Amino acid sequence: MEPETSTEPSKKSLKKLQNKEKRKAVKAEKRAEFRTKPEPEHAASAPADVDYEKDPAKDNYGEVKGKSFSKDAIEVDLRSLDESYKDKTVIVRAWIQSTRGQSSGLIFVDLRKGGNWTIQGVVGTEMHEETPAKERPLISTSMIKWIRAIPPESFVVVEANVKLPAKELTGSRVTAVELGITKCFVIASAPARLGLDLETAGIMIQDFNEDPKVDKSKVDEAKVDEAKADEAKVDKATVDKSKTKGLIEKGTKPPASMLTHLENIAIHKRAPVQQAIADIRVEAKKLFRSYLEGHRFKEFEPPCLIGAASESGSEVFRLAYFGQDAFLAQSPQFYKQFEIAGGRERVFCIGPVFRAEKSNTPRHMTEFTGLDLEMEIQNSYTEVLDVLEGVLLHILRGLQERCAEEIETVRLVYESKPLLLPESGKVLRLTFAEAQKLLREGKPDQYSEVKDDEDMSTQQEKDLGALVREKFNTDFFVIDKFPETARPFYAKLDDDEDNVVGKRVRVTNAFDIFLRGQEILSGGQRINDPVELEKRIIAKELNPESPGIKEYVSVFRQGGVPPHGGGGIGLDRVVAWFLQLPSVQLAAYYPRTPKRLMP
Amino acid sequence: MEPETSTEPSKKSLKKLQNKEKRKAVKAEKRAEFRTKPEPEHAASAPADVDYEKDPAKDNYGEVKGKSFSKDAIEVDLRSLDESYKDKTVIVRAWIQSTRGQSSGLIFVDLRKGGNWTIQGVVGTEMHEETPAKERPLISTSMIKWIRAIPPESFVVVEANVKLPAKELTGSRVTAVELGITKCFVIASAPARLGLDLETAGIMIQDFNEDPKVDKSKVDEAKVDEAKADEAKVDKATVDKSKTKGLIEKGTKPPASMLTHLENIAIHKRAPVQQAIADIRVEAKKLFRSYLEGHRFKEFEPPCLIGAASESGSEVFRLAYFGQDAFLAQSPQFYKQFEIAGGRERVFCIGPVFRAEKSNTPRHMTEFTGLDLEMEIQNSYTEVLDVLEGVLLHILRGLQERCAEEIETVRLVYESKPLLLPESGKVLRLTFAEAQKLLREGKPDQYSEVKDDEDMSTQQEKDLGALVREKFNTDFFVIDKFPETARPFYAKLDDDEDNVVGKRVRVTNAFDIFLRGQEILSGGQRINDPVELEKRIIAKELNPESPGIKEYVSVFRQGGVPPHGGGGIGLDRVVAWFLQLPSVQLAAYYPRTPKRLMP
Repeated sequence: MEPETSTEPSKKSLKKLQNKEKRKAVKAEKRAEFRTKPEPEHAASAPADVDYEKDPAKDNYGEVKGKSFSKDAIEVDLRSLDESYKDKTVIVRAWIQSTRGQSSGLIFVDLRKGGNWTIQGVVGTEMHEETPAKERPLISTSMIKWIRAIPPESFVVVEANVKLPAKELTGSRVTAVELGITKCFVIASAPARLGLDLETAGIMIQDFNEDPKVDKSKVDEAKVDEAKADEAKVDKATVDKSKTKGLIEKGTKPPASMLTHLENIAIHKRAPVQQAIADIRVEAKKLFRSYLEGHRFKEFEPPCLIGAASESGSEVFRLAYFGQDAFLAQSPQFYKQFEIAGGRERVFCIGPVFRAEKSNTPRHMTEFTGLDLEMEIQNSYTEVLDVLEGVLLHILRGLQERCAEEIETVRLVYESKPLLLPESGKVLRLTFAEAQKLLREGKPDQYSEVKDDEDMSTQQEKDLGALVREKFNTDFFVIDKFPETARPFYAKLDDDEDNVVGKRVRVTNAFDIFLRGQEILSGGQRINDPVELEKRIIAKELNPESPGIKEYVSVFRQGGVPPHGGGGIGLDRVVAWFLQLPSVQLAAYYPRTPKRLMP
Repeated sequence: MEPETSTEPSKKSLKKLQNKEKRKAVKAEKRAEFRTKPEPEHAASAPADVDYEKDPAKDNYGEVKGKSFSKDAIEVDLRSLDESYKDKTVIVRAWIQSTRGQSSGLIFVDLRKGGNWTIQGVVGTEMHEETPAKERPLISTSMIKWIRAIPPESFVVVEANVKLPAKELTGSRVTAVELGITKCFVIASAPARLGLDLETAGIMIQDFNEDPKVDKSKVDEAKVDEAKADEAKVDKATVDKSKTKGLIEKGTKPPASMLTHLENIAIHKRAPVQQAIADIRVEAKKLFRSYLEGHRFKEFEPPCLIGAASESGSEVFRLAYFGQDAFLAQSPQFYKQFEIAGGRERVFCIGPVFRAEKSNTPRHMTEFTGLDLEMEIQNSYTEVLDVLEGVLLHILRGLQERCAEEIETVRLVYESKPLLLPESGKVLRLTFAEAQKLLREGKPDQYSEVKDDEDMSTQQEKDLGALVREKFNTDFFVIDKFPETARPFYAKLDDDEDNVVGKRVRVTNAFDIFLRGQEILSGGQRINDPVELEKRIIAKELNPESPGIKEYVSVFRQGGVPPHGGGGIGLDRVVAWFLQLPSVQLAAYYPRTPKRLMP
């Protein structure tokens, strides 16, 4: 055995070294593989007649790697460009929306950032005639040709001199200045042919039900027929057909289906209409949260994974969970109530809820964002109704004020009637019985038979919305005192005897709120007494000992639980009906339907 | 056939009427059933020797139903009571925390609201001797007995005169005033014997792994032994044992397991320590959001249901979805990137993420709340690191400032060392290689062999945290430039040749951020070029054509996608490690572990 201090390597250490060398070689090979990075396959390669290598201007265009900018150039956000930047040299990163102009000496490059912020760029030697010859930028014909060939939706960085245009611009959002582009580098190239171009992405979608499993190559040939068929499918109640036609005829391109949009999600999202909808959605959430935080509500997160399908067995997703079954929560109802039982007083949550409904309608998705709240009641459940009306009007009025521009952007594609909102504290509150009476009297042909103890259909709701708009001049109203037959077991019955005997129908302290004739909120008072709760569970022919129900009831026996109530709002629906969109899918970022889980 | 105008009922209509009457009778029966509501089963019934019906004071106590308050009484939140209410008559709703005193003429009633807001109430005739005899409240011995017997954690409403106490109070949070209770009604009674009392709910939990399937009646007998065993299980790294013992010995009660807490979720949540943790969690979320909104980030909601288990196949939940498989998202990674591809520039999301890991450790849950962000990069991925350091320090410092009181409340139960935070812009950024070197040199016995291209273990991370605290006086630091072997395929490789050749290990522009020696954030730059991305997918021995991966890569071919990066934070962990809690379960509202999905 070799002494440990020996300077000679031992056999063992030699072998170690060999192995090490081997590993090193393998690694070097791997590295080499990475370093010989080829040209991006769909890069904006130079047109055939451009000899890039010999071009003296070659440092001013091409791929961004290895290129540099002038020392005095400042990085600026496209949106902040105005007259104050006149004659300055700026660096701007943006998408190429389009390149225009056939002249070899001058082309236009429309750059875009942030939804619909566009600015006009110009590449040409004429632009710089006022600049002293020595400082004049090097712009070659090859460079102009190369830039002209960059595919739309490529992401680029340009260096440019900010110029005041000869006459005010009208084709771009930034009208006060234009960019005299002196360098243009591609950071990420789009493909030469887009799967969905930006213009088409901005046309009203009409087909929301195309099946992703159908081979599209066969369908492509009959695209125009398809477009016409789509048109027929569109929900008549929400889309004014004559206007739709007008829109389609305006452009030359047929609309794309929702499926095509989703398969080109990057471009779908870049369309100004989708950016505007997304911004409105962001604002709706903010308004919900800020109102409630201002009213002493605290946020919490209910679980999605639950141990029992407690609220309704049929429409729930089930999954294997370490030897037991788990389910996806259909609402945070029970957990909101646990928060109240736990002394949190006023809570809200914003999160996904899941419904395993095979409904391919403009109103349904299998996953959507719930806005929920729950609060202690002091004297009456109308305290809850006050808060819910308050928060919804805060959202709707807030959107009108803060998102006027975005609403107009959406309206260019999806038209909508002005929304009639009531003054605060003057919201129309009909009882369910009064609403049914309105229907019986307002539309006797269809509704002479509707009963005070039977729930309304979607069509009834829409017709009621129209009747209410006509009679009360509002698109926002409450239906209160739903019959117990139309409400879940935890809904608190109205214990005013007059409401029971006088109307011969047992009603609850539960209500819906409607927007443009569609329900956007369900709420009410919940039973807080475990004995009463068990009675109602039995009356509803449910088993109080069944999994989920049992644990739910037990919470009300753990300690005294104060009276409480709350409500749930579908964020996607609020946004969709506020904007009168033809489908709730348009209000979601990644709509989940029975047919589709991608992207 | 009878003419339609006949006033006589037809046979058909007679039968109809009969059926109607029948239905009516059934309904009336059902209604009667509801109306004969018995006394609540666990109501605070009067002690045997109280003759309620004959008591002239009977309108001043009992169940709330049918009772009334004085006309001049004003409803007040317990928390706002101070000297300004002196001699006023108030109505206060709260939980009975305890009733004390054996005298038949005077008892104390501690009322609680909002976590740990307690106030002392007194019921007795002596309280009102200064009041003119005619206006003196009617308080009987029976009333005092009845109130004394209300079970703790019942929810009550009292009418009371606000009094200045003879000497300052120390036993309650409100010290300036006390309540001379003149009426006390039970709104919701607690059971006579609680499954978990508030005092026990406030004792440090040590057993987080009790199996819900084990029959507890058998275990109950050996409760003290169990408590000792629990103590042995506790995570040595986070709990100082000598202090734990001290805490347990202070009280007379043994601690309850996490399972017992969860089975008594209402009381668990009412404990001041849990209320404080929940409030800190709320604030952490707010701080995350406000910082990002201030830095032009927009919120969005990624889906939970996804069509392919894309990021890692093994630890994902799978469910049946209308004839195909769906999976629960393990992170919003891909969707954050789709937002960037879609031109949203800077995005964040807050939502549930799911991991099907069968890990029963203090660090793991199967569902937790992710705080994620993604942003365009202009010049360097360190722009992302700057934002992530910024938002985390904003959260941690914000919590120290805004939640000082809550932190102290938690510390009474779960002790923690003061947190050493760096100044902004002076965060320690070690490279992975430097961190390994620190370990090799700082703890040569254990770590002399650690390699620069092998990921760290949890224990290594903790030991590194201790070494860094000692050497650099900080609990918050970054490890940057992780080896590519420790990162997913979408991590962007560092293309600086020096970092490859010089260190002989291929590294990424990816990093982790550590808090008290535990990772709380992973982040880095992502590959934005589809060709590069496919190469990395193949190098990682994944199939670029596999479901999920294929659609992911395709997004980068739909249009040019700017360089971008981001990071993900586990909210539960941030809260838990900030407070040095023994388990992340304590920071969650409804912890999900492989063993438990209830409540």
